[in-house]
Amino acid sequence: MAVKLLGIWQSPFVLRVKLALSLKGVEYEYIEDDILNKSSMLLQYNPVYKKVPVLVHNGKPMAESLVILEYIDEIWKNHPLLPEDPFEKARSRFWAKFVDDKFVPMIIRMLRITSDQKDNAAKETREILKTLEGSLDPNKPFPEDKSLSFMDIAIVWVGYYTQMLEKMLDVKLLDDENTPLLNTWFRVVLNLQVIKECLPPFDKLLTHYTNFHERHTTAS
Amino acid sequence: MAVKLLGIWQSPFVLRVKLALSLKGVEYEYIEDDILNKSSMLLQYNPVYKKVPVLVHNGKPMAESLVILEYIDEIWKNHPLLPEDPFEKARSRFWAKFVDDKFVPMIIRMLRITSDQKDNAAKETREILKTLEGSLDPNKPFPEDKSLSFMDIAIVWVGYYTQMLEKMLDVKLLDDENTPLLNTWFRVVLNLQVIKECLPPFDKLLTHYTNFHERHTTAS
Repeated sequence: MAVKLLGIWQSPFVLRVKLALSLKGVEYEYIEDDILNKSSMLLQYNPVYKKVPVLVHNGKPMAESLVILEYIDEIWKNHPLLPEDPFEKARSRFWAKFVDDKFVPMIIRMLRITSDQKDNAAKETREILKTLEGSLDPNKPFPEDKSLSFMDIAIVWVGYYTQMLEKMLDVKLLDDENTPLLNTWFRVVLNLQVIKECLPPFDKLLTHYTNFHERHTTAS
Repeated sequence: MAVKLLGIWQSPFVLRVKLALSLKGVEYEYIEDDILNKSSMLLQYNPVYKKVPVLVHNGKPMAESLVILEYIDEIWKNHPLLPEDPFEKARSRFWAKFVDDKFVPMIIRMLRITSDQKDNAAKETREILKTLEGSLDPNKPFPEDKSLSFMDIAIVWVGYYTQMLEKMLDVKLLDDENTPLLNTWFRVVLNLQVIKECLPPFDKLLTHYTNFHERHTTAS
């Protein structure tokens, strides 16, 4: 097939690419990699980071989820993901980068956190979520399947993985007091059909990361 | 003026924006900010990161150097910075991001490094430079003023700041043994007229960061 996607099921970055391909109606072959035993295909296609997602189009591989989203949006013109206006485009890229800069280290930290560090980390996460709420325009209608954008795809996983962290660590991160608009936004968007079809199963994700957390916080 | 740039003279990210505007021949007002006493303009225009560069175009502010480069390339069409081919475009964005992901933390670390940590950090830096060498196509001619691209602008500062670190810490990071192509590439590109006009003065940069390094490594 002309389009292949190397991924792992639990990755929010792979999710982004799945969503973009799905919204564009691009058929592709999905190849599940193994994080503990990386395939020779992955090592060959992304020797720099050795990480998924890797999109292979007509034999040419590329990596980094936001780079891939830009590529997909340029190759398949239907259902445009980035806004046309250059300033709005810059805004979308800015917030997508914000999520990668702020949430990725925070989630990596949360997955290794011990109970005495939990409250501080939760407080910091709530502050980042509060900042992210500033990316939403209160006057703009919530997206629907047909209007999901680059920015929506870039940030929607934050809601899902935050819900997972809340269950796993028994903390409150998202609520209507701190982030009323973002909280509602996540609830609505995570319930869209196209999103639900691409999300990893919640219970499987929770079990996976709870096991990971236990392995990394149990005194050896 | 329709275009304003908020910057600080020593920032490699501000350098990127200066280079892009210069290559496009865009006139702009440059406003030097103060890293120790940030202006109210900066706080208003980039409340999320409170960092330069901020480009203000027709009253609209935007932040993050690579986001700004994309915007500039879209608004001013002369001297295109990104290649037309979507795959080559993805490649440019990938390597620009690599530089930010890998060199920025490395340089931050180097600026606070103590003498006993120096050799290890130098070794790691040389490995990153070796990987960056893989971004260069040995069959492609070196850029000239008229052909400088997004990727050139995104990575050229690495050469200059690495030379500064070499002097400051008395270590060898770039040489013809480890990174022959990259070493020559930096030498040629850093000597282009448009680059030289935008670079901060080397001695001033060296003095600035040597003082910074001394302040951060002297036992308090």
